[in-house]
Amino acid sequence: MSMKQIGFADVKIEGGFLGKIEQLNEKVTIGAVYDRFNETGRVRAFSCTWKEGEPDRPHIFWDSDVAKWIEGASYVLAKHPDEELTARIESVIDDIEANQWEDGYVNSYYTTIEPQNRFTVRGNHELYCCGHLIEAAVAYYESTGRDRFLKIMMKYADLVDRIFRVEHSAAFQTPGHEEIELALFRLYRCTKQEKYLTLAKFFVDQRGANTLDQPIAGGIYGIYQQDVPPREAREAVGHSVRACYFYASMADYALETGDEAMAESCRRLWEDIVTRKMYISGGIGSTCYGEAFTIPYDLPPESAYTETCAGIALIYFSQRMFLLEKDARYADVIERLLYNGVISGLSLSGDCFFYENPLEINLRNHYKIKATANQLRLPITQRVKVFGCSCCPPNLNRLLASVGDYMYAVDGDEIYVNQFAPGTARAGGIEIRTGTDYPFTGRIKISARGAAKLHVRIPGWCRRITASAAYTVENGYAVFADNTVTVDFDMPVAAIASDSRVWDNAGKIAVTRGPVVYCAEARDNGGVDLHTLTLSPGAVGAAGVLPAGPSGLPELELSAIRQLPTPGGALYYPAEESAFEVFKLRLIPYYAFANRGEDDMLVWFTRER
Amino acid sequence: MSMKQIGFADVKIEGGFLGKIEQLNEKVTIGAVYDRFNETGRVRAFSCTWKEGEPDRPHIFWDSDVAKWIEGASYVLAKHPDEELTARIESVIDDIEANQWEDGYVNSYYTTIEPQNRFTVRGNHELYCCGHLIEAAVAYYESTGRDRFLKIMMKYADLVDRIFRVEHSAAFQTPGHEEIELALFRLYRCTKQEKYLTLAKFFVDQRGANTLDQPIAGGIYGIYQQDVPPREAREAVGHSVRACYFYASMADYALETGDEAMAESCRRLWEDIVTRKMYISGGIGSTCYGEAFTIPYDLPPESAYTETCAGIALIYFSQRMFLLEKDARYADVIERLLYNGVISGLSLSGDCFFYENPLEINLRNHYKIKATANQLRLPITQRVKVFGCSCCPPNLNRLLASVGDYMYAVDGDEIYVNQFAPGTARAGGIEIRTGTDYPFTGRIKISARGAAKLHVRIPGWCRRITASAAYTVENGYAVFADNTVTVDFDMPVAAIASDSRVWDNAGKIAVTRGPVVYCAEARDNGGVDLHTLTLSPGAVGAAGVLPAGPSGLPELELSAIRQLPTPGGALYYPAEESAFEVFKLRLIPYYAFANRGEDDMLVWFTRER
Repeated sequence: MSMKQIGFADVKIEGGFLGKIEQLNEKVTIGAVYDRFNETGRVRAFSCTWKEGEPDRPHIFWDSDVAKWIEGASYVLAKHPDEELTARIESVIDDIEANQWEDGYVNSYYTTIEPQNRFTVRGNHELYCCGHLIEAAVAYYESTGRDRFLKIMMKYADLVDRIFRVEHSAAFQTPGHEEIELALFRLYRCTKQEKYLTLAKFFVDQRGANTLDQPIAGGIYGIYQQDVPPREAREAVGHSVRACYFYASMADYALETGDEAMAESCRRLWEDIVTRKMYISGGIGSTCYGEAFTIPYDLPPESAYTETCAGIALIYFSQRMFLLEKDARYADVIERLLYNGVISGLSLSGDCFFYENPLEINLRNHYKIKATANQLRLPITQRVKVFGCSCCPPNLNRLLASVGDYMYAVDGDEIYVNQFAPGTARAGGIEIRTGTDYPFTGRIKISARGAAKLHVRIPGWCRRITASAAYTVENGYAVFADNTVTVDFDMPVAAIASDSRVWDNAGKIAVTRGPVVYCAEARDNGGVDLHTLTLSPGAVGAAGVLPAGPSGLPELELSAIRQLPTPGGALYYPAEESAFEVFKLRLIPYYAFANRGEDDMLVWFTRER
Repeated sequence: MSMKQIGFADVKIEGGFLGKIEQLNEKVTIGAVYDRFNETGRVRAFSCTWKEGEPDRPHIFWDSDVAKWIEGASYVLAKHPDEELTARIESVIDDIEANQWEDGYVNSYYTTIEPQNRFTVRGNHELYCCGHLIEAAVAYYESTGRDRFLKIMMKYADLVDRIFRVEHSAAFQTPGHEEIELALFRLYRCTKQEKYLTLAKFFVDQRGANTLDQPIAGGIYGIYQQDVPPREAREAVGHSVRACYFYASMADYALETGDEAMAESCRRLWEDIVTRKMYISGGIGSTCYGEAFTIPYDLPPESAYTETCAGIALIYFSQRMFLLEKDARYADVIERLLYNGVISGLSLSGDCFFYENPLEINLRNHYKIKATANQLRLPITQRVKVFGCSCCPPNLNRLLASVGDYMYAVDGDEIYVNQFAPGTARAGGIEIRTGTDYPFTGRIKISARGAAKLHVRIPGWCRRITASAAYTVENGYAVFADNTVTVDFDMPVAAIASDSRVWDNAGKIAVTRGPVVYCAEARDNGGVDLHTLTLSPGAVGAAGVLPAGPSGLPELELSAIRQLPTPGGALYYPAEESAFEVFKLRLIPYYAFANRGEDDMLVWFTRER
């Protein structure tokens, strides 16, 4: 493997959409998540002093929440030393160190509540917490050079190795929630100690190949858990976050070992996801039941689960696939998520979150649920400051603080430019400078001193490209022999249709511009029922691009057709009597929905052919 | 009140659609339901000999199942004496008589299982069973002249009067499931005894006006039970069968007493149902949760509950409203139900049933539920011979055996013709003869000897009428001074749109011809995904009318537009690249869906403007 991403620490984003979300996270979200975790007892839990009867009983997954926050905060520290932030992290590490067991075990829940039961329940997130703490420790070490936390977690990893790989003395063999696999590959890359690679591979290989693990939850097809040997996996199934964490670790496996059967399985799974099970937002996991993938082409917009964490997990999986395959499609999916289905999990204010990211809100259905005994299950309609299961907010912390990771990669003296934002990057003797106002326009100027070739991703959405120099197209990249080029991706407003097998989108279109998916909110449209509007591809193509709204990205205005209220109030009437009017429809970027109070929202409009 | 329906016993239907379903019920369904009830212990339960540990434990609502069957069988006997049928009924009456309590109480469940607990649990269907047994006894008496059963039930009614109205000694005041109100009005009309009218009115007036009754089940709005004083009811809410049985009894109240506030409330409720809460099939009750009405315009097709019994209950309510108001709209709704959403509850073979009557089947969603842990709830896709809660089959028995009730009415020497089928009817000195092949065509020839005026319903769907004589239009009727006329209702294939507030039908149309709603099944259409088809009103208007299929009614063939499978297999792609083809779409009457094995089915198609 010679392809390497340029790490976020070597990438300076100077504005643009990605710079803005990176800054929002650093200035607001990191602090907001800490405050919520502090208020809810998650930080204090590490002191292991909770007593029965007290509030804020420690929970089995709390360690992972704080660990992801530490990971994100560490990335911030890599760029900007900050005493208060460091003190907060150090204080948690103090507690972890003080409560680490003699044999290395670290877990605030088990240590406090039921120490006698450690490693007995597969579904209790123990190795998941361990994995996130390892990732946090590596991140903190790599960002600050401080190795106390890293040593603590290496000792714990050694215990896990003994219990699971050597002694088989736990009541299960693989974790109920994947994550430790990813963490161990990372620990290996950080420490260069083979034993962690061995243990990482062990956990991947054991899956579906041991008799100790019982399937968690059910369904004859959409199992909750990945319980198939990884090289035999044919389809993405089960809990979508767990699945993609595992698939990402499978890709790590292939990256570290060159295991072609594993790489082939990764390709199959990734293709299955992005060609059959992914929303236009990039979101995955169609159902709240099991937070899971369902069957191919099942993408209901209103009940979409599309957990923020699942989108993040798909970014992790896709980035590893890019490193493995050098194909622009993987970066396309990362872009889709960064501009849509992942960033929708964060409010414009930076301190409120969605766990679920639906592609439609119909408040009448929400009213119905509240008003009747209806047990329909729909996502919430307003972002909140913290969840009971608050995995998504700190996952955004770590993703956004390291968003620079996804922009550039180097393969020898060849540069790959995957995401577009103004700024600079350096890797070895190479220096890159990018100038762009992307995604306002698709014009990107890149100069890369010390590079022999420049591979610029041609976004999957792009239909026309102009460039300042000659290029060839390889694996979705425009490949330039020059190292200073200006490329222009034509970025019209586009009407997008779904594969006709997506039954919920049949006869419908969505509106995009460049990487940005748009939606309508009723408040921008006179409160009309958005379902009564139809759009033609022609009208979409003629849309007006308006200045940036509160989202920071352009809004759109286009001519829709609106079916007028029924003549005479009849429930059913001859269709010839329907009346229509031209309706000026205002659209905002999808990711910015639900930032101004509860409202109806729609992405997929009935199509006028 | 001078308007009277001509009872089914005086109406002879000689073929046509209504004659066909009347015959199917008489020849097949009555026997099939008896056999199932016999096999499942429902008939035997009346012997009150069941012992703990034996199979077929009596259930709280079993009496009502058999009672409805007796009612239907009695209607058959009114026309055709049948010894075996009589013997079956008499045998049940023997058991009822043998097990009637000294004080008059009759209930196979309580008598057998928990005699000490009678009249203690509002939700346990005791008065509901009582009501159905009363209706059965009246029907049997009126059909055969045999009064043993009637006397048994009068004694029970007297007990109910004492317990509920005089002593207030039950643990509740009004039934959890309405029905006894209707039965008592009927018992009064049969026996002319004022006390039954008094008790019927008592139960109606007590609703929402006493402190003993606790609401059953929840929701701040769509309560399961009607718990508002009847004259104050503003909206149809809660369990749709219970609601419409109660509204029908409110209409009986208004009919018997001239209570205008009650009549006004009935009008409000009926309007609320038919202009905001009724499927195009006539079905009502949008949700399985509470088998209930939900909020206005909430009419999801695939998860539609639309219980067969609820459609029957709306027929009962509508017929009483017709008698009260002499308006053709009430008969329109009855027609809508008889040709669509009620008769869909019966297989073409006459021996299998739907409890729920959805307006869409998408087998992929059913597969998803089976294959994953998905808890989505959808109606079954194939009719079955009997249900655990098998209220609908015997309700079809009694409705279809008395379908003649809905055809004609007399007001003095004026005749109202509400439903159209060939045959004869008589009332006093009036003799009516109808000749028609309705609904193959809309031509109806009616002669009514002894009538001064002929009111012929102009169906709500009819846009053009020609007649052999001059007429005026009153309350939706063509009123002729002649007593022999031929009318011709133009019956083109029609594209029907919904009130634009029905969000599930926004941008969609359905296809009807005359009273018949049509649907597509995938098997008639090459197995294509029906969601990929769009229809224009123009193409619908140009549809070809084909000879009758297995349903006995014409099938249709029309030009739809089909979106072809996605170019290149991309999940999302520019809408301009969509390819379409003209597709010859075959439609069958909605009511006949799911008679040839599991299949996708669709009523509402995306509209091409």
